[in-house]
Amino acid sequence: MRDSNREWILADRPEGEPDLGSFELREGDVPDPDHGELLVRVRYLSVDPYMRGRMRDAESYAEPWDVGDAMSGGIVGEVVASESEAYETGDLVTGNGTWADYSVLDADSATGVDPAVADLPAHLGVLGMPGRTAYFGLLDVGEPTPGDTVVVSGAAGAVGSVVGQIARLNGCRVVGFAGTEEKVAWLTDDLGFDAAINYKTTDDYRAALDDAAPGGVDVYFDNVGGPITDAVFTRLNLDARVAVCGQIAHYNDESVPTGPRKLPQLIAARAKVEGLLVSDFAPRFAQATEQLAAWVESGDLAHRETVVTGLENAPDAFLGLFSGENIGKQVVRVSE
Amino acid sequence: MRDSNREWILADRPEGEPDLGSFELREGDVPDPDHGELLVRVRYLSVDPYMRGRMRDAESYAEPWDVGDAMSGGIVGEVVASESEAYETGDLVTGNGTWADYSVLDADSATGVDPAVADLPAHLGVLGMPGRTAYFGLLDVGEPTPGDTVVVSGAAGAVGSVVGQIARLNGCRVVGFAGTEEKVAWLTDDLGFDAAINYKTTDDYRAALDDAAPGGVDVYFDNVGGPITDAVFTRLNLDARVAVCGQIAHYNDESVPTGPRKLPQLIAARAKVEGLLVSDFAPRFAQATEQLAAWVESGDLAHRETVVTGLENAPDAFLGLFSGENIGKQVVRVSE
Repeated sequence: MRDSNREWILADRPEGEPDLGSFELREGDVPDPDHGELLVRVRYLSVDPYMRGRMRDAESYAEPWDVGDAMSGGIVGEVVASESEAYETGDLVTGNGTWADYSVLDADSATGVDPAVADLPAHLGVLGMPGRTAYFGLLDVGEPTPGDTVVVSGAAGAVGSVVGQIARLNGCRVVGFAGTEEKVAWLTDDLGFDAAINYKTTDDYRAALDDAAPGGVDVYFDNVGGPITDAVFTRLNLDARVAVCGQIAHYNDESVPTGPRKLPQLIAARAKVEGLLVSDFAPRFAQATEQLAAWVESGDLAHRETVVTGLENAPDAFLGLFSGENIGKQVVRVSE
Repeated sequence: MRDSNREWILADRPEGEPDLGSFELREGDVPDPDHGELLVRVRYLSVDPYMRGRMRDAESYAEPWDVGDAMSGGIVGEVVASESEAYETGDLVTGNGTWADYSVLDADSATGVDPAVADLPAHLGVLGMPGRTAYFGLLDVGEPTPGDTVVVSGAAGAVGSVVGQIARLNGCRVVGFAGTEEKVAWLTDDLGFDAAINYKTTDDYRAALDDAAPGGVDVYFDNVGGPITDAVFTRLNLDARVAVCGQIAHYNDESVPTGPRKLPQLIAARAKVEGLLVSDFAPRFAQATEQLAAWVESGDLAHRETVVTGLENAPDAFLGLFSGENIGKQVVRVSE
C-alpha cells in the first residue's frame, strides 16, 4: 500500500472546451475512513460526459464542483480498511468515489462486485450507472414495443451500446449513429444493430435515416443533440417517444446553442420528449443490475470498455469523451 | 331561404402570411343532402389558427386543402332539410361544415345544440373543439395537481382562456401571456388568473415570470411558441409537463424557424414535452362537453366570443387570429 495518495481536483472552471489546465493532481495523505466508511484502493475509475456539467458554476442535476474539489464519480476497487460490518478488507466494491489512488466510500452507498459475472471495468459500464441509464431510459421513457424502430445517437458509447441491444432484445429494429467506421462495424457486426450511420462521413442524415429506418422513428434515445437530433425529429412517427439522456454535442457550448425549433413538429406526431436522469430510478437499481447481469452472462448483451492506464491520465480519458475516443465505456485503470 | 349559396374556397396557397388573395367567394346552388345528411343554414362558423396548416401543401395532422376546395371547419346552424331520422328541420346542430351560407353535414358526425346552456357562438368555443382541446390538453397531457403553477400562452384565446380556468378550478396558480391590456385585465379580473403578462409591452419575459410564477413552472400549456416559450422553458420545475397545443408564432414562417435549443434543459428538469391533438380524445368528447357545460352553467367557467358579422368577412376574421384581434373565441356570424 502506498503511503501517500494522489487525487485529481478541479483547478479551474473551463470556458467552452476543457483542457488539461482544468485539472490538478494533488498529493496528500491516504485518508482514514470514519465509522460506516470504507477505504478503497481504486482499481478503475469512470469518466462520463455528464461530469462536464459539474465543472460549471451553475445549478444542475448534479451539484457543481467548486474549484479545489476532488473530481468524483464511479469507482471500483478493493477494500483496504473497513469501518463497517458490511464489508471486509479484500472485498471488491463499487460506488461513488474520487479520481484517486485511495478513496473513501460510504459503506451504505457501496455495492459488492462479483468479478465472476464480468471483469471489473464492466461494473462501471454495462453493470453500472451507464447500463442502468440505458435500461430505465429505454424501457421506462422510450417504452419500446416489438416492431418499433428505435434510433440511438452516441450508439457506440457506454449508454447507447446498451440501449440498442436492449431494444433488439425487445424485438425492435435498431439504428445507431456513431462517429467511426470501427464503431459502425461493432454496432452492426457484434451488437446486432440493424443499421448504423457514420455521422462524420454522412452528409444527409435525413436520407440516411430514410434508408436505415424506412418506417420512420418510434423511439429516439438521444445522447448527443445537434444536427443528428434535428434530423431524427423530422422522422418521428405518430406517438413517438424521445428519451433525452445526454446532449454531448452541446456540453462545451459557451452560449445557449440554437437550432431548428422542434415544438411545431411535435403536434402532428403527438410525440413525447422527456428528459431522464438515472438517479430517479434508484429504488429499482437492483432489479436493473440483476437483469443486465443475466443478459451479460447469457451472452445476449455484449459490452466493451476502452481502458486508459494510469491515474495520471484520467483527465485525458475524460477529454477524449468529447472527441469520441472511446468505444463502449471509457474507464481509467488506476491499479491492478 | 336563399336560392343560391355562397362558399369560400382556397384560391391560392399563401407563402408566409396569408392575405385576402388566398380566398375566393364562390356562388353556386344550394346543395342537396344525400341519405344520412343534413342541409344546415349556417348561423356561425369557426375560424381557428390550425387552419393555416391546411393551407400548406404538406401532410400534417389535418389533411391539406387543395386549391379550389371549400374552406371548412366547425359550424353551428339550423337544419333546413334532413335526410336522417336523427334530426328534423328546425333543429340546431354543430359539426364540421364549410364557410358557406348552407352546408351539408353528416348526421352521424353532427351534434345537437342546446341554446339554453349557452348562446350559439359558445358551442364553437368553450363547448366546442377549443373547449375540449383545453380540457384534454390540460388534464391529460399537463396533468396539473393542486398547488402547481400553470403557465398558458395565448391565454386570452379560445383554448387558453379555458385552460387557465380549468387549472384554477383544479387548485393551481395560473399565469397567462396575452397581447393587450384589455386581454390581461380580462384574464385577471374576470377569469381568475393569478397573474397575466402583456408580452407586447414586456421586455424581459424571464423576469416577468419570476414575479408572476416565483415558484417556477410545473405545467406549461403552449399555444404560441417563439420567445415566450423560450423564456418559460428556462423556468421549468422538476418533472414539469409541457403540452404543445399550438405554435401560432410560427404558422406563417416561410422556413424552419430557429431558436434556443431546448433539449439540454429537459434533462435537469426531467421535463416532459408532448404534442397534443384533440381528435385523439374523440371517444371522451361527450364527457368533456358535459363537464364544460356544467361549469358554464354554474358560472365557474366564463367565456367570451369575438363576433365578426357577415360570411363575406370570414377571411378577415381568420387573418385577425394572427394579429390577436380576438378575445376568446373568434367566430363569424353568417345568419341569424
